[in-house]
Formats: sequence, C-alpha cells, structure tokens
Amino acid sequence: MATYTIKFSPDNIETAAEAGENLIEVAARAGLHINASCGGEGVCGRCRVELTEGRVDSRSGPGQFLSAEEYERGVRLACRCFVDGDAVITIPPESRADASVYASALAEAEVAVADLAPLVREVEVDLTPPSADDNVADYDRLRTHLADEPNLGMELEALRELPSALREGDFKACMTLFEEPGGARRAIGFRPRSKPESLYALAVDIGTTTVWARLVNLDSGDNGPAHGDLNGQISFGEDVISRIVFAGKGDGLARLKERVTDNINRLLDLIEADEPGCRERIALVVVAGNTTMSHLFTGVDPRSIRLAPYVPAAADWPVTRAADLGLNLKKSVPLLLYPSVSSYVGGDIVAGVLASEMYKKPELTLFIDVGTNGEIVVGNQDWMTCAACSAGPAFEGGGVKFGMRAAPGAIDQFYFEPAARRHRMGVIGEEKPIGICGSGLINIVAELFMAGVLDQQGKFVREAAPDLIRDGEDGQEYLLCPAGETGLDRDIVLTEIDVDNLIRAKGAMFSGYQTLLESVGLTMGDLEKVVIGGGFGKSLNLRNAITIGLLPEMPPEKFTYIGNSSLTGATLAALSGGMWAQAAAIKANMTNFELSETPGYMDYYMSSQFLPHTRSDLFPETMAALAKNKK
Amino acid sequence: MATYTIKFSPDNIETAAEAGENLIEVAARAGLHINASCGGEGVCGRCRVELTEGRVDSRSGPGQFLSAEEYERGVRLACRCFVDGDAVITIPPESRADASVYASALAEAEVAVADLAPLVREVEVDLTPPSADDNVADYDRLRTHLADEPNLGMELEALRELPSALREGDFKACMTLFEEPGGARRAIGFRPRSKPESLYALAVDIGTTTVWARLVNLDSGDNGPAHGDLNGQISFGEDVISRIVFAGKGDGLARLKERVTDNINRLLDLIEADEPGCRERIALVVVAGNTTMSHLFTGVDPRSIRLAPYVPAAADWPVTRAADLGLNLKKSVPLLLYPSVSSYVGGDIVAGVLASEMYKKPELTLFIDVGTNGEIVVGNQDWMTCAACSAGPAFEGGGVKFGMRAAPGAIDQFYFEPAARRHRMGVIGEEKPIGICGSGLINIVAELFMAGVLDQQGKFVREAAPDLIRDGEDGQEYLLCPAGETGLDRDIVLTEIDVDNLIRAKGAMFSGYQTLLESVGLTMGDLEKVVIGGGFGKSLNLRNAITIGLLPEMPPEKFTYIGNSSLTGATLAALSGGMWAQAAAIKANMTNFELSETPGYMDYYMSSQFLPHTRSDLFPETMAALAKNKK
Repeated sequence: MATYTIKFSPDNIETAAEAGENLIEVAARAGLHINASCGGEGVCGRCRVELTEGRVDSRSGPGQFLSAEEYERGVRLACRCFVDGDAVITIPPESRADASVYASALAEAEVAVADLAPLVREVEVDLTPPSADDNVADYDRLRTHLADEPNLGMELEALRELPSALREGDFKACMTLFEEPGGARRAIGFRPRSKPESLYALAVDIGTTTVWARLVNLDSGDNGPAHGDLNGQISFGEDVISRIVFAGKGDGLARLKERVTDNINRLLDLIEADEPGCRERIALVVVAGNTTMSHLFTGVDPRSIRLAPYVPAAADWPVTRAADLGLNLKKSVPLLLYPSVSSYVGGDIVAGVLASEMYKKPELTLFIDVGTNGEIVVGNQDWMTCAACSAGPAFEGGGVKFGMRAAPGAIDQFYFEPAARRHRMGVIGEEKPIGICGSGLINIVAELFMAGVLDQQGKFVREAAPDLIRDGEDGQEYLLCPAGETGLDRDIVLTEIDVDNLIRAKGAMFSGYQTLLESVGLTMGDLEKVVIGGGFGKSLNLRNAITIGLLPEMPPEKFTYIGNSSLTGATLAALSGGMWAQAAAIKANMTNFELSETPGYMDYYMSSQFLPHTRSDLFPETMAALAKNKK
Repeated sequence: MATYTIKFSPDNIETAAEAGENLIEVAARAGLHINASCGGEGVCGRCRVELTEGRVDSRSGPGQFLSAEEYERGVRLACRCFVDGDAVITIPPESRADASVYASALAEAEVAVADLAPLVREVEVDLTPPSADDNVADYDRLRTHLADEPNLGMELEALRELPSALREGDFKACMTLFEEPGGARRAIGFRPRSKPESLYALAVDIGTTTVWARLVNLDSGDNGPAHGDLNGQISFGEDVISRIVFAGKGDGLARLKERVTDNINRLLDLIEADEPGCRERIALVVVAGNTTMSHLFTGVDPRSIRLAPYVPAAADWPVTRAADLGLNLKKSVPLLLYPSVSSYVGGDIVAGVLASEMYKKPELTLFIDVGTNGEIVVGNQDWMTCAACSAGPAFEGGGVKFGMRAAPGAIDQFYFEPAARRHRMGVIGEEKPIGICGSGLINIVAELFMAGVLDQQGKFVREAAPDLIRDGEDGQEYLLCPAGETGLDRDIVLTEIDVDNLIRAKGAMFSGYQTLLESVGLTMGDLEKVVIGGGFGKSLNLRNAITIGLLPEMPPEKFTYIGNSSLTGATLAALSGGMWAQAAAIKANMTNFELSETPGYMDYYMSSQFLPHTRSDLFPETMAALAKNKK
C-alpha cells in the first residue's frame, strides 16, 4: 500500500499515512484532535480543515456545510477526507479539540473518608524456614500458616513473587491481600519485610470528554498527583451516541477500548514521573464512568444502550484485573468499576452521589451533572431517585451556530451594559474569540434577557439593541463580535435558533427536577440543597444559570459545587471498602425514572420553554429584578 | 548488530542469525533440535556438529570431547559456538534430538471415568426479554434469574459474550459454568441456545522430554485427537537440573516458559486441524507435569528445588487461566495444574497414580516411572508412600559412551547367540545404528549377562566372546557394531563403565522399592502388583528388566504398563470433578520419603550393585536360568 506524508499546519507536524486512511485518524495519531461531533458521519460539519497543498480524496463536495467558494479555497470536512497523496492540511482553531483547558478544570474536591480501610492492604506473614525435616513447598507452608483461611485465593503473579520474598527476608514477608466485595480474599503480591513502602491505588474517571487519574496513598489516605487528558475516543465522536454507533462498525469497539486504555496509560506515565516507583506499588484501581464509557473500557458491546428499551449489557461489573484491561500495571492488580443505575445514569453519577454525601444527609438534595446527557438525582438519607435527561448538545456548544467546547478562543464571560447598549466579553485563554462555549451561552442569554434584549420567549427585542440585532440567514441574530476582531474570517453572532436550543436544554433539565420531585409527592419548593457535579459546573455562573431557569431559584449558600465528583467517588472507594459497599448500596437503592415514559414530564417540559419559566412564581426574585430593570 | 545466514546440513534449512547467537538456539529456531544434555555448559560433549563452510566463534578447542584431528576437520561443540559469519553447519545424526519416534510412543491407555461430571458444563438460562417497564441490564437480569446463587463469579470475557448470546436467542442462552475445586462457581462463557455444540477440555502432559496434548469431549467422555512433540526446552538442557540451572541465568526462566507454551500452542494447532472449530469450544485445560516442569510452565522460579532442603515454591497450584499462561485459547478458560508431592515427586506421578487406580485397590502395588529421576510409589487403597530416586541418566542414554535417547538409529533390541558367540540387533527406524538407547542398554546387558559374557559384577568374561571383547581406552569393551556398519565413522561399543552406570541406575530404583516397603514394615515378597507408567515403559523388555534387577522378579501377569499415565491422569481430571478431588486427596495422603535421608537406603543400594542382586533369593528364577545356561 502506498505511504504518503501528511503535514499538519500551523503545528508543523508531519506523519506518514497510508492511502485510504481517514484524515481525522491520521491527525489523532499525530496527537492532534479534530472535532468530530457526529462520529465521522459527515453530518455535523464541525471538522472543517483546509487542504493547503497536495491532494486528498474528499468524498463530499460543496453543500450544507461548505459553500462553493469555501470548497474552491480548499476547505474540506476532515471526516470525509481520505489520504490519496502527500498533503499539507491546515486545522483551523474552531475545528480543534484542545486539551489544555481541561488540565485546569479540576476543582480541588475535599476528599474525606471516615474509615481508611481499603480493600487492599498488607499483612505480615512469619513462616518457619524450611529444613530437611520440614521441606514442604513455600505455598503449602504459607497455607499451613494461614490455616484459618483455607479458601484464600492466590494470584499466579503473587505466587511468582513468593519464593524470593520469603528468601530475602528469612521467611518473614509482607503479603498484599485483596478483599473482594463479595468477601472472598486473595493474595495479590509479596515482598520481603525489610523496607517499608507505601501502598497505592489509582482512581480513574473516564468522562466522555476527559479522562482523569489520581494516585491515592492507601497508608496515609492522602491524594497524590492527578492528571487529566482529552478522551482519545473524541476523534470517533463527541457524545456517547456517536461512540456507540462507531463501536458497531467493524473493529470500532476494539479501537475505542484501545483509545481509553492508552489514555489511562499515558496518565499513569505522568503520575509515575511525579512519584517515581509508584507503579510497582499500585495495588488497586477504581474506575468510574458513565454507562457507555464503562462498556467501551471493558470492551463489552454497548449497542443495546441506544436501542429501546435502552438496556445496557451490564450495570454491575465483575471484579477484573487492570492488566486484563490493558493497563500497564502489575498483572495481579484488581480493578473495580463503578456500577451504573441504567443506560444513561452511570457509575460516574453513583460516584458523584457518594462524593456529595447526600445519601447520608437529612436535607432534600438535588444533585445534577449538566451536559448533553444531563443526570439528575433527588433524595436524601432515606431515599433517592434519578433520571437521565437528554438535554441536547447546547451546553457543550452543539446545535449552536458558533458553539464550541470550553477551549481557548471560546467566549465564556459576557456583560451587557444597558445604558451604552453594548457588551463586554471574556474569552478563554485571552485569545481572539472563535466561538461560544456552553457556559458562555448561558451567560450571554441571561445578560441579554435581564437587559431586555431577549424576551421571555427567547426572541430578540430589536429596539433594545438596534445596532447589534440584525436579520441573518437563520432569522434574527445578535452580533457578538465583528469579523475583524475574531480569530475567524467572519462575524460571530448569536441566533434565535441558538437561544431556542439553550431554552430546550435548560427546560429539559428543569422539568426533570420537577418530574422527579413530583414522583415522590414533592415540589420544587421542598428542595433544601443543590449539589452540582461534573466538569461543567466549575465555569457555571450561578446567578445566570438561575436567570435562564437551568437551576432553581434558591439562595446562593444552598448551592455546592463539588468538582470532578466522579473522580472523588473513585478516590473514596479506593480508600475504603465501606465506601465501595456504600456505592453498591446507592446503586441498588436509587430508583431510576425514564422521563420520556413518565406522564407529566412533557407538560413540565412545555411549560419550561420560557425564560426563566412560564411559572414565574418559581423565580420570584428573577422576575422582580427583571421588572426593576424594565423601569 | 550484524546478521548472517546459517545453513544447516543435510536438512538444507537456512536461517538468519545475529552475531553472537548460540548455535543451538539458532538451530532450535529453525526447528532442528541439537542434543544439549548438560544445558549448554560444555561438559557433556553430546552436541558435536561440523563446520562445513564459513566461520563460527568456537569457544572451546580440542580436549576432552574433541580430538585435535576432529577439531582440525571442523568438528565443534554447538553449545560453545556463536555466530560470527555466514556458515554451513552439519548436524550429525547422533547429535540430533529427533521428535519422530515420540509421536508413536503413546500407548492407548484405557481411560475410564466412573462419573462423567466435569468441572465445566453448560446450563440453560431462560430470561424474560426486557421491556420498557423492565429494562434492567442483561447482567442484572441474569443475576436476578440466578438469585439463589448470589456469589456466582463472572469472567469479563463471558460478560462480553452475554449481550449477543441473549439477543440471538430471544434471551434463551447457554451459560458455561466453571466450578472451582474450592466450590466457588463462575460463568466463563455464553452462547445462543440454538445450535448444540460439544464442550471440550484439553489434557496436557508436560514431560521433561516430550509434551503431549489431547482433546477430550466433555459431553461424551470420548478422547479426541492427541499429539506429542519434543519439549522445546530440550535445547536448554536434557534433564530437570540443567533446566533449573538455565532458568537462573538472565531471562532463562522466561525463555523456558515460552518454549513450553509454544509447544502446547503447536499441539493445539494440530488438534484443531483434526477437529476444526474445537478451539472455541475448549472450556477447561488440565495439565500434569513434574515439579520442575510445573514451575517452568507457570513462570515460578524453580531454583529452590535443587538447593537443600529441596523445597519447591509450590506443590499445589492456584486455578489460573490458560490465556494468562500464554495458551491460544479463549481468555476465560480455566487451567488446573496437577499438585506435586515434593520437589522430585511431581504432578505427573500424582496423575499417574490416579490413572493406575492403585489408590482404590486392596493389592499392595508398586508404581514406577523409570528415568533419570525415577519415581516410586508403593501402597494401596489404605495408604501410599513415595520417593524420588536419582537414578542418573543411564536409562536415557546419559553416561553411556554411545548412549542416546530412543530415536532413529538407536540400538534397542539385542539377542546374543551363545553357540555362535555373536549377536543380532534391532535398531529404531531400521537405520544404521548410531548409538544405544536406555531400553537397548538394558536388553544388551541382560542378554550378555544371561550368556555369561558379563559376570555378576558387570565385568566382561573375555573367553565367553573373545572376538568381541577387547581392551578399549576406558578398559574392557564389547564390540557391538564395527564402524563400517554404523551410521558413524567409528565402532559402536559397550564399555564396563557403561555397564557400571546401568547397574548404579537400576540399583538406585530397586533399593528405593526396598526402602519404601521397609518404611511401612513390608518386604519385596509382599508386593502383589507392579504398574509401570511414563514414556520409558513401553519399550521395556520385562524379562530383561527383571534379569538386570531393575524390576522385582514376579510373574508377568502381575505387571501392567499403563502408557502415558500423566496424560491419562490429566484426561480423567478433565472429565470429572470427582477425579480432580481424588488427585488432591492422593497428593495430600501420600507420604514422601527422602531416600537420601532414610537410614538403610545406602545399605540396600550397596547390596544392589550386582546382577541381578547380591540377594539371589530375590531373583530365584533368574538365578536358576543363569545356572542352567552355565551348564
């Protein structure tokens, strides 16, 4: 097969590629992630690149996503381009999936574990050295010593360590013991007694967008170094549905599995660089991820998740070994994967609920993770109920004309000055703006609404900002940034369709809270606490999220943001077998609602399609402030 | 590193080799096994090859094993030769480890298992298909169905098979269940109910010299195809001690492990060729091997086996997975490895005792496996005692001037015609003779003894065959075959040293029987049955083995040869969990004697250094026949 050289610009990275290879994959191999929101189906138009030199085999021409002029200029959809010769490809900023911002997105969650009693620990074994009269095998000798535990399991890898561990320490050794959640115990390692060393666990959060790993010291309970990276599966689709579709094609499942394994192995390398030698002493891995990520990580076919009646292959996971899943750790190291509740309420949410501590508090709490797939939990120490809510991609920049993920160049801050009828903006990375991220969209809509530039239906009020509102190709639009001040070659605008999409998304979440509360005979007014988990929470402006009706109107002190609650939950379970048992209890006791099957959800949804809501009694202060502004 | 071409003659096989590579390993890679009895230490002189063209780096010159003339002619010790350029190497017949004879050495042992109840079996699971009202995960659904077995384990690989198995069969599937010897159960596979297929096991015998594997049908209990091959470790040493020494050098252990794994994988390929598709349906592997082979197969350091007090790392083995040990089988397939009794009474003997059925018979039985390391078991249904006996390599052709393994060209049959004072010989493969194998040595010594050519001390009686007995460089020798009739360039002779070595070997075995019997207050006269297991037995001439005092003098009907009893034992355990439990009981109940530590053994040994024995009352018929011959 012919091999060509593809050079990516402006990165100036060259890589060899074979004829017929897809451009997104060639870029991924070179460490460059191109947006492919739709999973390479050619239906989202987010992967625009420019053929600067040479040739590619482009399988779609001008049309919905490319004007004839753009096509003429060399603009192509990377997902439809296949290597057909040497080429120089320019990846514009808006088509990049940039990892840098995520590296700072982790809030330092407070990890507090009551009982530091991990499922792996070391125990001392003092054996009598063998003699001519007593020459039974090492393993038999050990079992005689542990006679009160006849069913103690033994990993082969541990058995391999046994003879030298015994002989280096005059038959006094340390045995690393793993207590399976079901109660069975097995030896997973041996070392000579001589030098005390800490035992570690690795806590991992596999998010659809990012993957995080943290070293946890099982002796002190302290958090070690943590590192995050963009989920390498992102070049095969941005959301879980496109990943599931990709998994169903050829060896898609194996490739997705390999990507996330590579992710974790790279994070392990970074952690080991911070803490040399720790890898050999990692004795447990705890992973939390949503249901789809859990399937893709274990290599279990996820296809039934997206087919009615939305049944995953597994919600609980058997204990496995990290090495069996491809992690570069000792072969005997066990891996625990958080249980899911349902196809769309996954182990990340169970971990988040554990981290939130709502399961042991009397206050009626709402726990949410905002995203394309939003998850909602309400309850307290006595009961919990949950639902997944298909909010659509607006929170992650999808379905929005200039939407993008929270990456450099994204408009995320926005302030409207009614007197001057103009706005100021903040951009991630202090670069020239190239788009709008989800939290930016919320801020823009909230500010424009409070200034009277948007009405309660989400329509522009032209006279409130006559210089900025104009007719665009998709109806009325608001000029956020003229072309000359952007990092693009065109104006950045907000359209009424964008606003509609956000209203639909926030309405889906809010009506979810209402439905869940109603299902247990309660109303919004009964809520005492709101806990926000997940990656999106950190950049959320609480006031603006209430203003648009995404969050319920409550005093600020009732809200808590707990950072990467999935990673925190994984950490807690690594530190304590009791916490892991608690996770299982949370999964088992949480009632899952299918919102689409729940009568009343649609009514709530319809009445939420308003800013902040048709029921203004739910947002009295917001309405009062609005009224005051109008005067 | 420089790469050269090494061509082997007369096979005409070429292979690339890197500078510095050892010649024995280069040959092994090309599929040609050169004798290396001493494990490449350069101390046995059995690996003579000829440098026909080109150059090698030979690190030993003329001396004990090579005359100056031979060296001049290009004869070298392969174990001391390293690649240093292109070369043509001729491997003479006597230096070859030929596998072909082993392929026919397997006696068809009668496998009879009382209860066909293997530790793996299929059970039917009928689940209710999911619906919108009942959309729990497949795995949860299964567990609810199996609610009476909350601790059922689940292999990840089985979980991967679950979703499609359920959906292809309307949620009616077959689950393959493995019952661990300790009682725990786990699912190891799923398939749709639709097409009935047999479930198989693989029984494996890892011998020091040969490796055998047999397919076993777990539904019918029938034996499927079996294949054998020379143990690939043989190029690293012929006996267990030289393998252990090799394992201690650099990555020796890993290389030895890889060789035997490769062996089994090749046998699997042959079996699959006989029974297409069987590999996917193999659900259990049972392996038997001696203690050293068990360590080398599992990659557990064997070095303590040969160091006083001779303690192996393991005598019992945890259940592992075949794929974890490198076998090309489904990842979930469990592997059981037979327990050993001690460092030198291994799992092959426990398997052999199981196959012999002596453990359930009232007769006092002697079970033996004759070899460099001879194993002896005496006992019956009430008790059993065993010992290993370091007989030395004479039975396998070692320490014998023209000794060789039972391979083509080996003299194995021998008849002396007293009247004509000459002999006739049979040669394996009907080729020109190149040496003497162990059974041939026994036949020669027994015939010469009965003809009065050898006396009771093992010394030649010159006047009994004046034309054939002569003075050689090692004392008196008997001319078996003049150079012109051999496949060599020199006479084949039997020396008095060779006879001495055989007497030492048979004496070590016989005094072992006596010592074991005495340890339980019995004598040779109490023996009711002799069972011969192991590969050596098949070619053994019973009458001659008694004549030299290797076997006790008993009527022929008291002897049984049960073929590859280790493979038979592995087969039985594959067919029945009860048999596997019986193996554990045999191991646990067998008392091991260290002969060297047992008072009296040395006295018995000294008095056995005679043909057939100093105590002629133990061999009355032999002595009577001898007396008759002398008349």
